[in-house]
Amino acid sequence: MGMGMGMGMGRVLLSLLIICFAIASISEGKIRHYKWEVKYEYKSPDCYKKLVITINGKSPGPTISAQQNDTIVVEVKNNLITENLAIHWHGIRQIGTPWFDGTEGVTQCPVLPGDTFIYKFVVDRPGTYLYHAHYGMQREAGLYGSIRVSLPDGQSEPFVYDYDRSIILNDWYHKSTYEQATGLASIPFGWVGEPQSLLIQGKGLFSCATPKIQADLCNDTSPDCFPYVTTVIPGKTYRLRISSLTALSALSFQIQGHNMTVVEADGHYVDPFTVQNLFIYSGETYSVLVKMDQNSTRNYWMTTHIVSRNATTPPGLAVLNYYPNHPRRYPPTPPPSGPIWNDRYPRFAQSVSIKSHKDFIHKPPLISNRTIIMLNTQNLVNGKFRWSINNVSFNLPHTPYLVSLKHNLTHLFTQVQPPEGHNFQSYDIYKAPENKNATISDGIYRLQFNTTVDIVLQNANSMSNNTSETHPWHLHGHDFWVLGYGDGKFDLNRDSKYYNLENPIMKNTVPVHPYGWTALRFQADNPGVWLFHCHIESHFFMGMGVVFEEGIDRLPKLPSSIMGCGESR
Amino acid sequence: MGMGMGMGMGRVLLSLLIICFAIASISEGKIRHYKWEVKYEYKSPDCYKKLVITINGKSPGPTISAQQNDTIVVEVKNNLITENLAIHWHGIRQIGTPWFDGTEGVTQCPVLPGDTFIYKFVVDRPGTYLYHAHYGMQREAGLYGSIRVSLPDGQSEPFVYDYDRSIILNDWYHKSTYEQATGLASIPFGWVGEPQSLLIQGKGLFSCATPKIQADLCNDTSPDCFPYVTTVIPGKTYRLRISSLTALSALSFQIQGHNMTVVEADGHYVDPFTVQNLFIYSGETYSVLVKMDQNSTRNYWMTTHIVSRNATTPPGLAVLNYYPNHPRRYPPTPPPSGPIWNDRYPRFAQSVSIKSHKDFIHKPPLISNRTIIMLNTQNLVNGKFRWSINNVSFNLPHTPYLVSLKHNLTHLFTQVQPPEGHNFQSYDIYKAPENKNATISDGIYRLQFNTTVDIVLQNANSMSNNTSETHPWHLHGHDFWVLGYGDGKFDLNRDSKYYNLENPIMKNTVPVHPYGWTALRFQADNPGVWLFHCHIESHFFMGMGVVFEEGIDRLPKLPSSIMGCGESR
Repeated sequence: MGMGMGMGMGRVLLSLLIICFAIASISEGKIRHYKWEVKYEYKSPDCYKKLVITINGKSPGPTISAQQNDTIVVEVKNNLITENLAIHWHGIRQIGTPWFDGTEGVTQCPVLPGDTFIYKFVVDRPGTYLYHAHYGMQREAGLYGSIRVSLPDGQSEPFVYDYDRSIILNDWYHKSTYEQATGLASIPFGWVGEPQSLLIQGKGLFSCATPKIQADLCNDTSPDCFPYVTTVIPGKTYRLRISSLTALSALSFQIQGHNMTVVEADGHYVDPFTVQNLFIYSGETYSVLVKMDQNSTRNYWMTTHIVSRNATTPPGLAVLNYYPNHPRRYPPTPPPSGPIWNDRYPRFAQSVSIKSHKDFIHKPPLISNRTIIMLNTQNLVNGKFRWSINNVSFNLPHTPYLVSLKHNLTHLFTQVQPPEGHNFQSYDIYKAPENKNATISDGIYRLQFNTTVDIVLQNANSMSNNTSETHPWHLHGHDFWVLGYGDGKFDLNRDSKYYNLENPIMKNTVPVHPYGWTALRFQADNPGVWLFHCHIESHFFMGMGVVFEEGIDRLPKLPSSIMGCGESR
Repeated sequence: MGMGMGMGMGRVLLSLLIICFAIASISEGKIRHYKWEVKYEYKSPDCYKKLVITINGKSPGPTISAQQNDTIVVEVKNNLITENLAIHWHGIRQIGTPWFDGTEGVTQCPVLPGDTFIYKFVVDRPGTYLYHAHYGMQREAGLYGSIRVSLPDGQSEPFVYDYDRSIILNDWYHKSTYEQATGLASIPFGWVGEPQSLLIQGKGLFSCATPKIQADLCNDTSPDCFPYVTTVIPGKTYRLRISSLTALSALSFQIQGHNMTVVEADGHYVDPFTVQNLFIYSGETYSVLVKMDQNSTRNYWMTTHIVSRNATTPPGLAVLNYYPNHPRRYPPTPPPSGPIWNDRYPRFAQSVSIKSHKDFIHKPPLISNRTIIMLNTQNLVNGKFRWSINNVSFNLPHTPYLVSLKHNLTHLFTQVQPPEGHNFQSYDIYKAPENKNATISDGIYRLQFNTTVDIVLQNANSMSNNTSETHPWHLHGHDFWVLGYGDGKFDLNRDSKYYNLENPIMKNTVPVHPYGWTALRFQADNPGVWLFHCHIESHFFMGMGVVFEEGIDRLPKLPSSIMGCGESR
């Protein structure tokens, strides 16, 4: 074992060297070094005290601010007590560093308590990105934050603004992730329910009065319990980077009395359009420009409302503080009410209106080599509620795919690929599934390297009558072109004719609307193994995801730091 | 990396072979194979529903019943969601298998979710033992159970009985171990407080009425919410194997109207003595004989009461059901009240009366080679409450000592050994410590192989005035002779003259009473690394432990299955 240990150390050094050279060769930017301590702390983000996973004492964690082509080095020390972690860099494609995507079970083993893991990757494009836990349902315990990448010196964006702010929207539960996950995996099934509050940049307001909760647990009169406030100078234009990391909820974001001009989506410039409500789904990021041109003697509400679910959760509130009004002065008029929760057409309309900025169009290939149609259904497997794609519900193995594929450990997951589609003719998307039973599988899609792949997400009725939920799908390691959205059942011959091949936006997260479909195209040009999944925490836990492999044979030796679990030793 | 993996697999096989041969050579018994699945489940052991860690759906887990010299193989599958585990086989000395002691940070890396760990060890002595989680504060989440080892065929015990029952006593908290541990590690300090209930063989009674808790969370009228019942046949004699795994509480156990004859303690035969109250501390096991000779037309209460702390917790209750009375018929008279909580002399008296059975005396060596005096104090370190030995508060590293010592990774913990004693003349054990500050260390005691070591545990006042707590100290890998107990300050010259060297009992867990001392002797004859610690879950978490190394150079290659964390890769 002495020799084994020596080899282990040597391996670490060698891998680090390889990574250093790899990064040096593609990067001209700075190296930005972060040291993070992750642990549990008692916090009251919405006045209710509970355990929160913090980074350096904060949730949301510190913002990573960098310039295009910088190398980000994050040294994560796990000080959770008996719990592992993994952190995903959401929207960062990890070109050349697929092992640092931070997806437990796909790209790495989790990081053990007491251990330090070093993530090192290049932020190769400007824009608004996120980071968050990607292990179990740990994200919703508070381990998340913003990544903001600016342009290289001398380059400028196709819009102007005076100030730049990042605001993460979230929903918040008072039960622990363990309680929630155990409920989801139990018979009888314990559904997580609607969130207790909505957070804006980590702050929310829960009413402690009904039913009365003891003051040491819930104190909504404490000065610490005040919504998020952002102070602005009248007359100036602000770039607000609005992103969502909700566990469950689709949101409408609104600023009382102000319009918002959408200029960026998931790191890509948008052909600008103006909205009063910004619909935003978990995993999405937008930049909006807001001119502070209203009556400057008062403050204004910023609000979030849940859409697409008939939720009981009160709206999220924050204060837009016009300087020099007092930041703790509540606005004199009530916050705007949100849109009608079950009117899906304005949401379709916003999705459709997001197109690439005319000066920044990346044209998609005109044809694709493979089309996978993914029917989204809710099912029962062994008496448990699950979500399925083409009647297959995904189950994550614990030896990361990246390791088992690279090392040809073919016995670690089924070599049968999931279906390319479903029984399209006969399936009635407006009814609860006739065949309630799905199968569980850890099979993955193997993509031929450098081919073009189309994905059509087809929504359907869940197991409850007259219910179809919005699912925000997030792709790791790539952006995709959003070719089109539709209402009802997708028809390849008919609908593919109307794909937007002229100026489609590129994104990494996109909703499939209730009873609708969404068509995407991407190039399998990033060697690695990549998760594609519903960004709703409980839905992915219940099987709503798939995995793509491409170009695994092109990868160099994997760093040993991602090993240590299952058969990856 | 392909080669690395191949080596890894080879290493596993080789280690398994070595273990198999090692075990085959010392064992003549059967191999008993267990397959355990460990996961979170909602359970209501005391009527209050909370997350419990179960083994094969149960807490307490399955009883391991074996015969002396059998080999126990436990395949543990970790199905906790994001949390690791380690299981300690309490009282099993692990001679020849120190890597399977199950102590995270000392003998192994924790077992990751999705992974299966195989514990394999010989139960080389008859008696009553335990198993439980040994990672963070995971034990009190419900991961524990009994080990019962019978004599080889043809041998018999020095007492007779008709039936044999195992009963584990426990205390129970409604907060999660995460909430408790985070509180203990926080500023301001969050003390765990007194337990909500006392469990007898996994069942307790919490009153859901005051304050009223919603019925789906707490239902004390449910038929599932009934105390533990054990049915007995009038006139017969029962061996009750009573053990305690409380997180905090010292207990008095009593059976209404029945005396108990103590015949075994921690696997050793006791010179029999009879009690009405059995005082029992966390980590101890006793066998008592009870003759069912009372009025057979009724049932009787079995009760536990907290002693040594002024607790608010209601007594633990269980029903001794005299057949054929209905098992759910409560006894007609109220349960006996317990002893006075702060009268420490009856507890001293019981400790002193436990001596070795005359036919089974293992005489201790008459002199020892080294005496370590361990002053037990409560301190402050960086504003946090801690427990210290000789003003050093223990901090567990995450690379197991067994690995770092065997592989000479001397940089992984301080090579400075903890102190052998304290400023004995000047220290006033009846006052809160004058020097409140302790230091944190991960240093360990290195013992010369095959030497005899004396440990004197010296209790003192905690940081609250007029308070000295009972600490049950548990030694891994050995039994020790209990040479004596005393009240007040230990004096080596005076008190060592009165050591019992004639018929001392051997134990693995022993209390040090309030303001008292306890003297132990053991032989450093078991190559490995062994924890010695206060068995109170929160006290060990707060630093109340030490580690002994002996004969590390005599160990063969370590199994690779214990590696994977820190620098043990």
